[in-house]
Amino acid sequence: MLEQIINCQNKRTPSPQCQRPILYTNYASESSWRVRIALEWKGIDYETRYINLATGEHLTEAYSEINPCRQLPCLITKTGKIITQSIAIIEYLEATYPERPIFPKSPLLKAEALSVALNIACDIQPLQAERVLNCLEIGGELRQQFCRRMLEIGLQGLESRLEKISGTYCIGEHITIADFCLVPMVFTARKKHNIDLKPYPYITKIRNTLMTLPEFRKSHPFNQPDCPQDKKEPVS
Amino acid sequence: MLEQIINCQNKRTPSPQCQRPILYTNYASESSWRVRIALEWKGIDYETRYINLATGEHLTEAYSEINPCRQLPCLITKTGKIITQSIAIIEYLEATYPERPIFPKSPLLKAEALSVALNIACDIQPLQAERVLNCLEIGGELRQQFCRRMLEIGLQGLESRLEKISGTYCIGEHITIADFCLVPMVFTARKKHNIDLKPYPYITKIRNTLMTLPEFRKSHPFNQPDCPQDKKEPVS
Repeated sequence: MLEQIINCQNKRTPSPQCQRPILYTNYASESSWRVRIALEWKGIDYETRYINLATGEHLTEAYSEINPCRQLPCLITKTGKIITQSIAIIEYLEATYPERPIFPKSPLLKAEALSVALNIACDIQPLQAERVLNCLEIGGELRQQFCRRMLEIGLQGLESRLEKISGTYCIGEHITIADFCLVPMVFTARKKHNIDLKPYPYITKIRNTLMTLPEFRKSHPFNQPDCPQDKKEPVS
Repeated sequence: MLEQIINCQNKRTPSPQCQRPILYTNYASESSWRVRIALEWKGIDYETRYINLATGEHLTEAYSEINPCRQLPCLITKTGKIITQSIAIIEYLEATYPERPIFPKSPLLKAEALSVALNIACDIQPLQAERVLNCLEIGGELRQQFCRRMLEIGLQGLESRLEKISGTYCIGEHITIADFCLVPMVFTARKKHNIDLKPYPYITKIRNTLMTLPEFRKSHPFNQPDCPQDKKEPVS
């Protein structure tokens, strides 16, 4: 399957395999979930390729031909071009599928939405990522301490920001890229690192509201076909 | 000074203090340098407020009124609005000062440029940041090992990407936000963490070309007024 995609990507004209965009994803990848929400939000018909992070499929030479950084997610466009980095993918989807905008039109509000998204993507997510924590050759207890400390600092800053700028959603009354990053981040913090969200009422309220929406539920890790049965829980 | 700015920010109409944008910066902040390059590139007349990271000025209550995440950089717009996160600030500058574009017009090339910038901002920079490394309560040797390992993984991925997509600059022949992120990242890797760049010829070549340009030199850490004399070296 990977070879087919690489061939497809190298062709100058779209091949039959590339009539729909293709998302490389894994149920447990926080940043892949951001893009799954965006694809659902825009109502884009897309194909899925599941990369098994548990067996290290993202580290294979075949996958590194697609993404040399060996990370998820990765989008193959309808014309066979590769885009990596979740926020770059979401900006591309916004530019090419303008219905149901993900960014406010005002440059200032757009900057606000992007800033919250980056706050999560640069300051919080990398410090709870398995690839990073696995490089910490320290015992389980210290590793967990580091991870929780970094998460607490990140969540405190984000909570203070949302106290000032949020409404029903992160940026007032409009759903934006900030919300697409918030929900997956909270999932990782709670499910992987047992972070108690009680000290963060704004984050909790916005996350709970968003989780009533079909785009966020359908794209949820537990609703993905590659999520092992023994990992699944009811989505709440 | 911080109080003046907060007052200014809370006013509905621009105050006299806000006739020019104001950048909160520190010579040693990698992400602040990205924004300094963008401001120079656009030829924007701006004011500077130096936040002393060494004395923890970014952690004070006064600064947290401006940026609850207590990080640099932070831009106060001409109308007194606050924007945080370097990439969000640069996108805002692009939207409001369109001369000398920093992003390609094509959505696909724009995604490519943004993806390289995010590759640096999400995957490399956070793992060489003092605020993160300081939370690692492990001896100097282990801390350095972790930092170097994470940097090597990040630089290898970036080098492979640039081998495929770069020209004179990161994205072919046009200077973009990707270049604004590359140069500061290389500075931190070399000067703070003694990373040898020989294994990364594409990164090195592009960085060296960019460092001949006045926008990158003027904004360089060693050319900032808040850089202590004993830290300064000739810019090369």
